[in-house]
Amino acid sequence: MERSLAEADLVLVTGGLGPTSDDLTRDYAASLLGLEMVEDAETMERIRRRLAARGRQCGEGQRRQAMVPAGARVLPNERGTAPGLAFSGPGPLAGKRARLLCLLPGPPSELHPMFVDQVLPLVREIFVGEVLTQKAKEYHFAGIGEGELAAMVDALNLGTEGIDVGYCAHSMGTIELRLTGSERDLERAEAAIAPLLGEDFYSRETDSLERVVVGLLGERGETVAVAESCTGGAVCSRLTDIPGSSAVFGHGFITYANSAKIRMLEVAPGDLDAHGAVSEVVALAMAEGARAAGGATYGLALTGIAGPGGGTADKPVGTVWIAVSGGLGGPLARRHVFNTDRGSFKRFAATHALDLLRRRILSYI
Amino acid sequence: MERSLAEADLVLVTGGLGPTSDDLTRDYAASLLGLEMVEDAETMERIRRRLAARGRQCGEGQRRQAMVPAGARVLPNERGTAPGLAFSGPGPLAGKRARLLCLLPGPPSELHPMFVDQVLPLVREIFVGEVLTQKAKEYHFAGIGEGELAAMVDALNLGTEGIDVGYCAHSMGTIELRLTGSERDLERAEAAIAPLLGEDFYSRETDSLERVVVGLLGERGETVAVAESCTGGAVCSRLTDIPGSSAVFGHGFITYANSAKIRMLEVAPGDLDAHGAVSEVVALAMAEGARAAGGATYGLALTGIAGPGGGTADKPVGTVWIAVSGGLGGPLARRHVFNTDRGSFKRFAATHALDLLRRRILSYI
Repeated sequence: MERSLAEADLVLVTGGLGPTSDDLTRDYAASLLGLEMVEDAETMERIRRRLAARGRQCGEGQRRQAMVPAGARVLPNERGTAPGLAFSGPGPLAGKRARLLCLLPGPPSELHPMFVDQVLPLVREIFVGEVLTQKAKEYHFAGIGEGELAAMVDALNLGTEGIDVGYCAHSMGTIELRLTGSERDLERAEAAIAPLLGEDFYSRETDSLERVVVGLLGERGETVAVAESCTGGAVCSRLTDIPGSSAVFGHGFITYANSAKIRMLEVAPGDLDAHGAVSEVVALAMAEGARAAGGATYGLALTGIAGPGGGTADKPVGTVWIAVSGGLGGPLARRHVFNTDRGSFKRFAATHALDLLRRRILSYI
Repeated sequence: MERSLAEADLVLVTGGLGPTSDDLTRDYAASLLGLEMVEDAETMERIRRRLAARGRQCGEGQRRQAMVPAGARVLPNERGTAPGLAFSGPGPLAGKRARLLCLLPGPPSELHPMFVDQVLPLVREIFVGEVLTQKAKEYHFAGIGEGELAAMVDALNLGTEGIDVGYCAHSMGTIELRLTGSERDLERAEAAIAPLLGEDFYSRETDSLERVVVGLLGERGETVAVAESCTGGAVCSRLTDIPGSSAVFGHGFITYANSAKIRMLEVAPGDLDAHGAVSEVVALAMAEGARAAGGATYGLALTGIAGPGGGTADKPVGTVWIAVSGGLGGPLARRHVFNTDRGSFKRFAATHALDLLRRRILSYI
């Protein structure tokens, strides 16, 4: 913190604002800036109300969270007990290069809204006319490798036209392309990139495929029912992460056991015996079964081997069959092999399932 | 990187090893250390095989990933295309303070195993006798606030006995207590802390409640069926994150719609009308319905209002009823209010459900 205040114009610190004895950020900042700690009455009241709502008493640790360095601006925390703290101006930051120091809570669910709602306006206020004039455009893709996409984009040589090109392979298995530059340069880049925005491209606004799928279904007044074996609820959980998803999703069937596939989805026991649970036939039967049992426009199903055990020579760990039914085309299944750990397997399989549904809704397949 | 190599003994860099034009870590390290880039035949072969398994060709970007600075030790990546790179000894690090520099892939699923399996052994080899002799003990709690736990632990004054006390509120809503110190000091601390390890304490080994629950069920030869409304599959997905969970979990019912609660769980329409979907009566009926339909030892159910819409005066956004049935006691439901964003609501509710099941399995409730 000391070095950053001497070297940077804007210093953001996250974490260490909690109620426990190892939460040292507040006190350290106060000692570094030579400020006394004083109780902030409004914060104390806010913490008390928050704890009371959970039937909890205010302890020593919570009282510490209401102590703030004198002269700090308190950034109220709607999502937790620890307020953020901002220091600016020659008072607290005398002799430092930094013109703004913000201490922010570590938990992302508290940090993110505080940054957007309270820190960014402060930055704009203090760094008038110095804020980046560059803009960014983002494009999100599924079903294409980072390398493949990059080969196509790099061939456009946008870099020579003042555009900064960035790629990010998100942990869910989608790819983000990010172009940064002046508004005018970006407009030209947008035209150059347009031919690449085909069926693999799914959004300019969000990396969340589930948000796109829920939006597409909502616009059409359509619904989906989901049957999951190997992903064990990951697809349903992602769909229901989206506010308003109840309008397009009502039924999910987590059929981890074969008996559940038979009972809940009316998969034929003979098909399970003849082809195994991880097969095209069973995936298709699950999708059709989910659609029928859920009375939905579309059925979406996954069956696979998440590992680490359970693989065979012709069905290695990581194998998954994903099926979609309903819409204009007939029922359709695709096979993938995700040779990775169990958690990544579930994420990648769920992403490919949501992407298969997107392509079916849009009649690409 | 330049500053770190001058100031630190061990430098770890993550990310920027991918196949795209903005992945600059490899080339920057080579230029900083004055090393030429050469193709590593083994890495090239590994990447080619990996891509072929997915039916993909090797592009320009992937070929770049097989280029390594001369003299670097290649750390093979079992989970992705980008190998890690390690630099040590007076050759590549001449004139630097650093004795080991590691460039590691950014994706956690690739980074974590590489760090544990390949980097830690290198650190032990190069920093012989200088490695930390301190040990750590961790304790994981659920159903207790960080402040409450800290107040009890701080009263023991372990700090004065050479123990460093750390707390972490995990994003799932559990609390970790971490004690660090010499082996002898830790033994004394362990005795002091023992009386605090009551019903809220669930593990020394893992922060994963689902791992603990799957373990408890497995030891007893018992099973659970899960019915989820507001959490939309988050509980099922967490249970099935655990390898071997298929032995204790076979049926999940994602009953987001009321019609699904009636059809899949035989919840009485009259109860839905009289009490609403978010009620003790319906939560209990869902747990019993899941247990019966899934033929399981225990039924676990959640129904609530994830928000941001849908709240009322007596059932505000964040309200959730969690019920468990089966085992020694009768069916039982608890009400919570998690006043947070939708994502955190789902995580906290799922954690409290898993914790309720844990307490029932152990006959605490």
